[in-house]
Formats: sequence, structure tokens, C-alpha cells
Amino acid sequence: MSHFMLGVDIGTTSTKTVVFTLDGQVVAQHAVEYPLLCTVPGMAEQDPLQIYDAVLASIGEAVKAAKAKAKASSGEIALVSFSAAMHSVIAIGKDNQPITNSITWADNRASLWARRIREEHDGQAIYQRTGTPIHPMSPLCKLMWLRYDHADIYARAERFVGVKEYVFFRLFGRWLVDYSIASATGLFNLQELNWDKGALALLGIDAAQLSEPVPTTHHVAGLPADVAAQLGLNSDTPFVLGANDGVLSNLGVNAIHPGQVAVTIGTSGAMRTVIDRPMTDPSGRTFCYALTQKHWVVGGPVNNGGNIFHWVRDELATAEADAARKAGVDPYDALTDIAEKVSPGAEGLLFHPYMAGERAPLWNADLRGSFFGLALHHRKEHMIRAALEGVIFNLYTILPAVEDLIGPTQRMMATGGFARSALWRQMMADIFNREVVVPQSVESSCLGAAVLGLFALGMIRSLDVISDMVGSTNRHVPIEKNVAIYERLRPIFLAIPNKLADEYRALSEFQRLSVK
Amino acid sequence: MSHFMLGVDIGTTSTKTVVFTLDGQVVAQHAVEYPLLCTVPGMAEQDPLQIYDAVLASIGEAVKAAKAKAKASSGEIALVSFSAAMHSVIAIGKDNQPITNSITWADNRASLWARRIREEHDGQAIYQRTGTPIHPMSPLCKLMWLRYDHADIYARAERFVGVKEYVFFRLFGRWLVDYSIASATGLFNLQELNWDKGALALLGIDAAQLSEPVPTTHHVAGLPADVAAQLGLNSDTPFVLGANDGVLSNLGVNAIHPGQVAVTIGTSGAMRTVIDRPMTDPSGRTFCYALTQKHWVVGGPVNNGGNIFHWVRDELATAEADAARKAGVDPYDALTDIAEKVSPGAEGLLFHPYMAGERAPLWNADLRGSFFGLALHHRKEHMIRAALEGVIFNLYTILPAVEDLIGPTQRMMATGGFARSALWRQMMADIFNREVVVPQSVESSCLGAAVLGLFALGMIRSLDVISDMVGSTNRHVPIEKNVAIYERLRPIFLAIPNKLADEYRALSEFQRLSVK
Repeated sequence: MSHFMLGVDIGTTSTKTVVFTLDGQVVAQHAVEYPLLCTVPGMAEQDPLQIYDAVLASIGEAVKAAKAKAKASSGEIALVSFSAAMHSVIAIGKDNQPITNSITWADNRASLWARRIREEHDGQAIYQRTGTPIHPMSPLCKLMWLRYDHADIYARAERFVGVKEYVFFRLFGRWLVDYSIASATGLFNLQELNWDKGALALLGIDAAQLSEPVPTTHHVAGLPADVAAQLGLNSDTPFVLGANDGVLSNLGVNAIHPGQVAVTIGTSGAMRTVIDRPMTDPSGRTFCYALTQKHWVVGGPVNNGGNIFHWVRDELATAEADAARKAGVDPYDALTDIAEKVSPGAEGLLFHPYMAGERAPLWNADLRGSFFGLALHHRKEHMIRAALEGVIFNLYTILPAVEDLIGPTQRMMATGGFARSALWRQMMADIFNREVVVPQSVESSCLGAAVLGLFALGMIRSLDVISDMVGSTNRHVPIEKNVAIYERLRPIFLAIPNKLADEYRALSEFQRLSVK
Repeated sequence: MSHFMLGVDIGTTSTKTVVFTLDGQVVAQHAVEYPLLCTVPGMAEQDPLQIYDAVLASIGEAVKAAKAKAKASSGEIALVSFSAAMHSVIAIGKDNQPITNSITWADNRASLWARRIREEHDGQAIYQRTGTPIHPMSPLCKLMWLRYDHADIYARAERFVGVKEYVFFRLFGRWLVDYSIASATGLFNLQELNWDKGALALLGIDAAQLSEPVPTTHHVAGLPADVAAQLGLNSDTPFVLGANDGVLSNLGVNAIHPGQVAVTIGTSGAMRTVIDRPMTDPSGRTFCYALTQKHWVVGGPVNNGGNIFHWVRDELATAEADAARKAGVDPYDALTDIAEKVSPGAEGLLFHPYMAGERAPLWNADLRGSFFGLALHHRKEHMIRAALEGVIFNLYTILPAVEDLIGPTQRMMATGGFARSALWRQMMADIFNREVVVPQSVESSCLGAAVLGLFALGMIRSLDVISDMVGSTNRHVPIEKNVAIYERLRPIFLAIPNKLADEYRALSEFQRLSVK
């Protein structure tokens, strides 16, 4: 009698619940937003109590909407399965109460500690065991920062958890972490599927201070009656732990087979592909996160995606964006129209999009953005096109690292806001010199969570059912003459940041001192 | 009974005549414009017949205005003295008729030949003898280009002259060139004060095909009666050959003493100082042009000055400039107001202004512009301030080359459009860490020409009278904390172009092929 499943994604700006039919059709959805707290430079925190409330409200409202629309009953909801942003850290004190906010992935205050772990504590070996590149965002570095820069909090903390663990504890009274979230902490040994002794030693903590690692298919039931009532669910509805939002997005867009690469550009961006065992990169360029014990996602995240286009809209193309708004046109559409007037290669103008430093493949927070090659014939539209191309060029630079691990790739599945633009999709096909398809999927992390939930409960035999749920909308093949242009520019694009490491570092230090 | 003198400047956009009293007060002026002809990339020509007509019209109208205003008579006009843009080339065929347009300094089509002369024909030795850096703008390179790429014209040419020589020939029937214009051809031996045999040999021409070199104080008289009547002058009014516009501008702003450096930013820019004998730089970074046999101007020109601010106004700050225009405010004033809101150093954003390649001190036409160091906190106002700072940073890079030749410098005389802005003047004082004063002078090349004329005719003993004619308006001393900021950024600014020679060349080649 089960006809519906819920995918819940605990994200950075909101928690979103989508109610699907068992074959993946969206029935209803509801998102509840919460703020990012930022009062000092580099800080990006969230209130875990607020997030817990948002999770309840989002599930409750989505269920209510599904019941109204599809005449669903509580008994017909087969499962609730979870996606969540990775890398969050909450210190928990006495009586299981949070003594810090949730320090999100976007928080950058551990950068000094990332550098020290890399340089002084054999960070490369820790990465090889844990699959998480040593970077300020990783909980490993955040915990080092707490240990040494906030020793009082560290001393009072009885345990350290992530945001999904906190929500599950509130619901079910147990501290559980799925292998997927765990594999993105920098503390989790991918071969042993347990906390890494070396990493714990570095932090001076023991495994009892962390949640119990369980498979992503682990599920629990037994909601307190009042919560079940508030959510409109039965108390025995199974809650599947699920995985992190990145790996679930790969599942949700049907990019889980060899040679298929999901490339997504939201605020930031990532390239990910699925293999059947954990693998790390000898030069430390890629992450490796669990989806299931038989599905591991390798790839690289980039800091600079839609945030760049946002900056271009607000700072470079202010007037054009305003005019578009007045005409009732999406400013981003107006900007891609402008960029389209310029030929591929922007007549020799390059943009390096490292405005937020960069993760993969260079993993250098000191990198900065640049327009390079400006000549008097360049106009604003060249700068706009160069910015779009730069974001794709940068994503492309992750591909060699991924192919070194998994072999040749054939097809790109493009997702995220940028995939709405035909210009960007073609640009990606031309820069990558590969076919680009856009999966027809909404809320891929929620869909991925729900499908993983079906698998967890034995309702499907294989994750492959996803291919029946996700169609594809647009398909772009590379245009030869554009490919030739981009192949000519690519080595120049790559050479510049390689030659300027000292200058990036000097400017980034200057900026730390001078920015108010 | 002579109370007036005329300075005539044959410039790139117009010929301007200023009528001065003998103590340098402006009585009247008149400019006549002409177009720059550009039908293929890199071309920048002018019609010499049009320029000749403009010279006559400009003198005639200025004289007429002076007569009306100051009740001057033809007999009271003591002299007419000339300034002219340097580096122009006109091929003259049979019967002294031009067979080409005047190929101006701005024409860039000889760039390949500049490179070849540097690399294959011992360009460095030619520079050491002639004082003109080997660059596409120099007549030496232009003549090589004509010889090999337009052999038909080269074969038909009986002589090669500059635009001032052509005007004097039309007026007085003699082919004369002053040492100053000659010293900027790349063909003139500074020690021998005659055409350089090595350069002539390279071109396969002899001295008879060039004008006769004479001192800048050389003067002729005997205007044809009809021309005299047209100009409102007596036939026996002495016409002084004068010098090139760069060296006369130094005279016209009273920067003719050791340690005084004139820094000007018009469309392009230059730094110049006066010494008493010809000197060249062992590494070829500076020019050396004659003012008189006892006054030689050394310095460096930059391609990127006001043209950068023009580009910023039209491409970066389009909306802000439009708003200013609507409010009746000069857009440039609005832009400096915006730049002023940002702290010195633009919070770590650097701009390299090489949008038109660059002459001094790097002499590399492949250089290109860049914004470097972009972070998400940078807004449009940071880009605007960085652009202003970049132009000054770049001018500053010439100073070490100049000081290597002449010793320490103390004071900068700032001229050109940018000197109107208090922000730019202070920026220059802070970046140069030197006092900056703005001479009160209009049309400095015309004033310089007129004063040189007085000297030529023995009406003054020394050029020093200029100091009574030119007051100073604004004075800026360096602000210590800003100096410290710029000293921290300067090495980063300098290092970047030094590391990227290959990338500039690759992009500039790409641009040559891709720009429509």
C-alpha cells in the first residue's frame, strides 16, 4: 500500500523535502530557509536548533501538501531518507546540548590549520586514508582550529557531530553517522570503514566522542508520538540515514556508471563520477566519498561557479542587469545573450575565476581571480563571456585528475543553474570536447536520497532504477572549430596560475590585512 | 616693437596655434582638426595636404583673433615657432609630391620589423647611436616595413620626410629637419648630429634622400606673398623650426633642470627629464631626444594613460558615466569620486594597464592588460581605483631607468588631463614617494616652441625665462601610510609581467588571428 517516498535535503540555505511517487514523480515539496550567521571574516555558521525546526516544518508541510494533492495517507508513506550538506561540525556538551553553532562547509577560519596539517602533520597520508583533501572546510581542520584556537570549547565538548547527526539524535536519541557524511570529515578510514586512529590521535580525541558510523542504508524507526503527529507520519515510518548531498546528486541525475561524469554549477561547482571502491589520488587532487559500500564518488569541488556569475551581474553588468529586470527578463538570461555576441575565446581575453580561492584541483585558498589579456578592442561583453568561459575552463582542469583515477570519460551530465542556458551547455561541450546532456531532474539530491531509501529498505534490487526516473532534455555535441579555439587557449589558461603562486600568496596576505 | 610670438603645434588630432605675449601670456589661440585614417588594423595615417591646410588656417585664425583682441599688427609678431608630433613618415616621389599619407607615430604595422631589427640587425647598437628605442613607431622600423612589404612605393620614393618637414618645404621650398625631430627617427646619430651611416645602410638609402638636419633654433624667412597675406603675417616674419612636441612640453612646463621630472598623462603618457648631453641606457629602456645642443631630453613613453580611463568609463562604468552626464557632471570627475571611496591599494586588486601593449620600460607590444587579485569583496569601485593606480604604477616603473642615467630625482611636474584630479595627483605623490606639483601652463608644447623661438632669435639669453612664465597650482606631498601600502604592492605589480612573457605573446598572437 506504499505509494510515496520522501527525500529530505538539509542544505546550506534551506531544508527541502520532496514527496515522490515510488517511480520518482514529484508529488509535493516544501522548503524552509534559515540564515547563515557571519559576524567575523571567514565565519559561516548556522543555528542547529533552527535547522532541526526547519527539518520538521519542511517534512510536515510537504506531507500535508501531498495529502491534499494526491489524497495520500500517512500509511502510504514508505520512507523518509536524508541528504545533507557535508563538512559541518557542532560541538556537543553536557546533556547532549550543542555548545557551538553548526560550523558549515563555507566557514573558512581553519585555513591556517589546513596549511599546518599539510605541511607539518603529514596531511597527505591522512588524505590517502580518509579521502578528504586537507582543506579548511574539512572537519579535521576545523577541529584542529577549535582545539588550539578555542581550547575552552574543545575541553568542554563531550562529542563532535554533524548537522544530520544532530537531527537524528533529536528524533531517535542515538548518535549515528552514515559512511557518506563520515567520509567527508577527514577522520574516517575508507578501507576500515571506521574512524581513523591517526586522525583521532592528531586531534587528541577518541572514537567515543564521535557518532557511530553506519551504512548509508541504515534506517531507524520509532518516532516519538508527538513528532510523528506533527509530521503527519506514522511512528513506525522508517527513516533512512542516507548520504551527503554531493554523492546523492550524482545518483539523482543518473550519473552512477563508469565514464559518466556529473558536472554541476550552483553557487559553487563540482565534477563527480562513481566507481565501485574507494580510491584516492597520489597527488591529492580529488575527494572520495561513499554513496554505498559498492558505490564511491570521486571528483573535485570548485569554489567558483554561480558566485562568479552573480558577481559579474552585480559589479560588471550592473546597468544591463537593471535594464533586464525592468523589462521583466531574468538578468542572467540577458547576460548570456550579451556573452553570445562574442566569439568563443572572447577574442583572447581569459578569466581565472578564483575569486573565492580554489579547491580542486589546485587546493589553494590564496588563488585569486583575474582578467588577463585585456586589449583596447575588448568591451564589457568580452569580459562577460570570458567570465563564463573561465568557470568552465576551471572545472575542466579537474578532469585529468579524475581520468588518472578512473580512465577515459565520455559524457558529461550537466546540472545546476547554469544548465538552463544553451550557451553555457554548448560552451561546456566545446571546452570539454565531450557530449553534454542535461538530465531532466528536479531536486536531484532529494531524489537520490529517496531512491537510496528504496534500496535501503529492499524495495528495489539496484540503484539502476534511477535511469527510468531521469530523462534527458538537452544534448550538445562539440563544435569542432570552437574546440580548436579552446584547445589553443587552454595551455595559456593553465600556465598563468602555475607561474604566479608567490604573487597570489602575497596579494592574499595583503588582502587579509587591508580588507575592512 | 615686437610684442607677440606664435607657437604652433602640429599634433595628431589637430594643429593648434597659440599667440603669446613675449612674457608668455596667452592672447589668442585656434585649433584646426583633421582625421586619423585607419582602414586596416594597425594603420594610423593622415593626409599631409590636409595638415598643411590646417597649419595655415590655424595660424591665420589665431593671428586674426589676436589682432582683434589685442590690437596686434603683423609687424608686432616677432616669430612663429613649431612643435610637431614625432615619428611620422611621408614618402615623397617625383616633383616633391607625397606618394603616401603621413604614417603617424600611432601606426603599428611595422611591429614585425621592429622585432627583426632587434633580433637580427643589432638593434641595440642602432639604439645606442640614435637614442630611439627600436619600436614599430620609429621611422627606422616603418621604413624597413615599406622597403620589404611595399617595395613598389619604396622604389618610387625620392625621399622620406616627416610632417613638419613637408609643411616647411611647402612654405619655403627647402627640405629641413630639426635635430629634435631627427633624433626621434632612429636614423640620426646623436654624437655626430647627422644621419647614421649604419641605419642608412640597413635601409639601403643615402642621406640625400632625407632632409638636411639643422639645429632646433634654425629659422628661415621669406614667406610667399600670398601665403603671408593669408596668414596675416609679414613676409619676413622668422619661422623657427623648433623641436618635437615631447621635448617642448618639458620646456613649456619648466622641467628643464636636473632632478625635475615631467610626468604627463594624456591619451598616452611619458616621463621626461632634461640633461646637458645625449645619453642612452645600456639596457635600452629610455629615449634621448634633442631640445637644443645643450638640452637633451631622456625618458620613456607609455602607451597606456588616458586611453585606459576612457576604456574604464565606456566599458566598466557605463552606467555611472551616463548618470554623471545626465547630472551635468564630467564623467571622469564622477569616476574619480567613485575611486576615492576605496582605500589605497584597492584592497589588494592590481591592474596592469598594458591594453595597447607597452613601450617604456618593457618595450613589448605583446603585453596585455589585466585585473589581478580579484576576490569576492571587490566591487566595481575597486576596479576603477585599481585602473587609476595601475596607470601610475606603470609610469613609475620608468623611474629606475631614468635615475640610472641621471641620478636621483626629487620632484614630479604632473601635466596632462589627469593632473586636473586631486585624487590622481595624490596617488602619484604616494606611488612615487615624491613631491608632485602641477605647473600652471596651458598648451605647454606651444609655449615651449615660442620660448625656443625667442632663444633662437637671440631675444633671450637662456631658456630659464620659462620659470617666470609658468607658475604652479597644486602641490602634493606623499602620505606616509599610503606610501607604505604602495611599496608593499609594487614588487607584486612588477613581478607579474616579468613571469608571463610567454603567455602575453601567445595571447597576443591569438588576438591577431581572432579579432575581426
